[in-house]
Amino acid sequence: METDIDLQEKEQETWERLATLAAAGDAKRLEAYVEHIGPSEAFRALLRLDPEEREKILTTLSPEEAAGLIEEIPDEHASDLIEQLPAKNAASILSEMDVDDQVDVIGDMQEADAEAILAEMAPEDAADVRRLIRYDPDVAGGLMSTDYLAYGESALVGDVIDDLSKRAEEREEAEHEAHVYVVSASGKLIGVLDLRDLVLARRTTPLAAILKSSLYVRAEASLDELETFFERHPFHAVPVVDDHQELVGVVGRDEVAEALANRADAEYLKSKGIIGGDEIRSLPVLTRSRRRLSWLSLNIVLNIIAASVIAFYFDTLSAAIALAVFLPIVSDMSGCSGNQAVAVSMRELSLGIVKPFEVLRVWLQEIQVGVLNGVALGVLLGLVAWLWKGNPWLGAVVGGALAINTLVAVSLGGTVPLLLKRMGVDPAVASGPILTTVTDMCGFFLVLSLATLVLPQLAGV
Amino acid sequence: METDIDLQEKEQETWERLATLAAAGDAKRLEAYVEHIGPSEAFRALLRLDPEEREKILTTLSPEEAAGLIEEIPDEHASDLIEQLPAKNAASILSEMDVDDQVDVIGDMQEADAEAILAEMAPEDAADVRRLIRYDPDVAGGLMSTDYLAYGESALVGDVIDDLSKRAEEREEAEHEAHVYVVSASGKLIGVLDLRDLVLARRTTPLAAILKSSLYVRAEASLDELETFFERHPFHAVPVVDDHQELVGVVGRDEVAEALANRADAEYLKSKGIIGGDEIRSLPVLTRSRRRLSWLSLNIVLNIIAASVIAFYFDTLSAAIALAVFLPIVSDMSGCSGNQAVAVSMRELSLGIVKPFEVLRVWLQEIQVGVLNGVALGVLLGLVAWLWKGNPWLGAVVGGALAINTLVAVSLGGTVPLLLKRMGVDPAVASGPILTTVTDMCGFFLVLSLATLVLPQLAGV
Repeated sequence: METDIDLQEKEQETWERLATLAAAGDAKRLEAYVEHIGPSEAFRALLRLDPEEREKILTTLSPEEAAGLIEEIPDEHASDLIEQLPAKNAASILSEMDVDDQVDVIGDMQEADAEAILAEMAPEDAADVRRLIRYDPDVAGGLMSTDYLAYGESALVGDVIDDLSKRAEEREEAEHEAHVYVVSASGKLIGVLDLRDLVLARRTTPLAAILKSSLYVRAEASLDELETFFERHPFHAVPVVDDHQELVGVVGRDEVAEALANRADAEYLKSKGIIGGDEIRSLPVLTRSRRRLSWLSLNIVLNIIAASVIAFYFDTLSAAIALAVFLPIVSDMSGCSGNQAVAVSMRELSLGIVKPFEVLRVWLQEIQVGVLNGVALGVLLGLVAWLWKGNPWLGAVVGGALAINTLVAVSLGGTVPLLLKRMGVDPAVASGPILTTVTDMCGFFLVLSLATLVLPQLAGV
Repeated sequence: METDIDLQEKEQETWERLATLAAAGDAKRLEAYVEHIGPSEAFRALLRLDPEEREKILTTLSPEEAAGLIEEIPDEHASDLIEQLPAKNAASILSEMDVDDQVDVIGDMQEADAEAILAEMAPEDAADVRRLIRYDPDVAGGLMSTDYLAYGESALVGDVIDDLSKRAEEREEAEHEAHVYVVSASGKLIGVLDLRDLVLARRTTPLAAILKSSLYVRAEASLDELETFFERHPFHAVPVVDDHQELVGVVGRDEVAEALANRADAEYLKSKGIIGGDEIRSLPVLTRSRRRLSWLSLNIVLNIIAASVIAFYFDTLSAAIALAVFLPIVSDMSGCSGNQAVAVSMRELSLGIVKPFEVLRVWLQEIQVGVLNGVALGVLLGLVAWLWKGNPWLGAVVGGALAINTLVAVSLGGTVPLLLKRMGVDPAVASGPILTTVTDMCGFFLVLSLATLVLPQLAGV
């Protein structure tokens, strides 16, 4: 087997090879090599190399090759790479990309950079970008492709077939090629044909005579609505219309599935405290530190508030110092139980199984599990405490506190995401800190106030 | 605006309506109603109703309608629903589903139930299922559809077009209809045609004369390999071949994107402690409790081990009881910092930006952020401690401990997922407990051992 060192040296060679080919201006061999290692290796290499080497590679590659590479990179990072190129090079690379990708990349840039690049693009392409950029990236208008086949209703089958054949010669593949959309003279969507219908019709038939009516979505349709649409209908793509019912694009099932996957990734990151933009470790240290600190500094304040509960019970703690061992355990375990409930609620919300108004139902379902798990964990921790110090009262206090606090934690964990969703706050971001703060406070209070009640029995543990 | 009560009553009516229509055996109106409310509402209703009502609804609907509904439900829950039906009904519903969905649903069942249902299915369908069920659900063989168009190389264009037209009359849409795959007499994949090629060719041309060579994947190709394939190639679908190069299916870009989204969801759930199967709250309480406890009981043991560090420092704690307030803060904050690093590593791994062998690189990148954030958080907590008790030594101890422990936490959080991945352990499941246990132990040790060093200066805080 190859050792780590071997693997690293091999990679190092790959990166140096890329840099050398670019420095030599050997476009052909550079392209062949990029093709050979594949886009994700090439992306890794771009991240690892100096900014100058990176620029040299992207400008030495043909704009088409460079665009193919950029399209495989998460949008935010693609924007960073493109932004650092001279506007002219950036524009020619972007011109090789689908307009929906252009919009995603330009949308993440500083405005000045975006304008400089748009000024270098062909005016009609720039106008397309400006038109589409006003859509949120996660609605139909932001996800749709404008690379589809549309013909007027009076066009004849034969003309369409000839046009398709001309297109087939000119380029590889249209993005949504299995269907032809039919529009009125004013651009309104009036129907759809699949290619089979064309194959089977006479050349002299006008499209109007054989078109089928088509479902569609509005450009403002949200990702959730699109998900529901594709759940209900077995289509591979759906046309998108604007407020005037005019056809403006086509959004595919795969684009929706990809956007859903990206959203799931983003929620995972947010739930772990990576907010304010995705992090990859090639970003500047200060940026990474600042973004992470924005989350941490909120949490430390909440933590201090929660732990301040302990300060009110110094007399109890001094009299029974063993309690100090159990405070972090009760806090951590309640966090675990609560997080499980958060995860189930987040998933049920995203599957549409539970609606934000069903707080009561979710709470009732959580407390059933909470009682069982609270008793199980409480008995376990209580026994450990009892056996350790030989004092059943210590066991009763910490076990009882953990049992009750587990119930609190699952109740909050289950319902808080629903309540946040109703308030329009992102539950992936806010559920964690709220849950932890409240269950910590409550846990510390339970351990220490129960202990105070039976303090004479605990003395000296 | 409608109140929660209104919304709940409305839903209640929906569910009762479904149950009533099913009880009356009014298949037509039941189908129309299910169509009207859509699959995700119908799924919600099925979960809420009694098992008998549920069965009544699924058996009253035509098998086709019931299959359409089942296909929208996450596989595990779909299996549960189907498993509870009489085998005959289950088989007729399954027979209306695509074979890849049949396999997913049957694959999640108890073996006896699966056998009973297979026995009721048409022998050739059952044979298909048995053939496909041996593939892991996340490899090409498990994701592929067998609903594609394939013709022998000697078939003539005209015959193919006639066959397509016959198919068009018989059913709505083949799943991968934009391409026609061409196979040899023995079933080996030899090429592909897109429908345009057929449209443009003479009817008497054999397919062999116009076919284009086709890329393919092996049935064992992993989800990661498929992701890379669709990154590198703009296709909507790719044919799947077995060890003998025979065409066995077609896997689409959207199926891969969906599988990736499901995997991201599963990782989110696992990272929050929902393991051993997805939970929805309609599962029996005991099942939910048991699954969650399996995770919690591991964590409580780890927590007890970590907190036992505190027990070695009772003298220090008794002398400076204020330290008890800071132990949970240091523990929680280190957990937060470490989790951010885990999230970034998980994402970089899934994007392929970082490879499991790059532990050293990741570590170097994490400690830069760790130093900055450790100092920032340490100074903040130190100042709070100092101001609270008017004792700078207390500030130095807790601030210093948090600073150092932040460095420990990000180092572990960044590298542990890579190390686990190398060892073949699922980092989504194992990273959290390892991180928390070690950073807790280390945090308690740092606070209390630093305090012990300067104990005379802390006396009485």
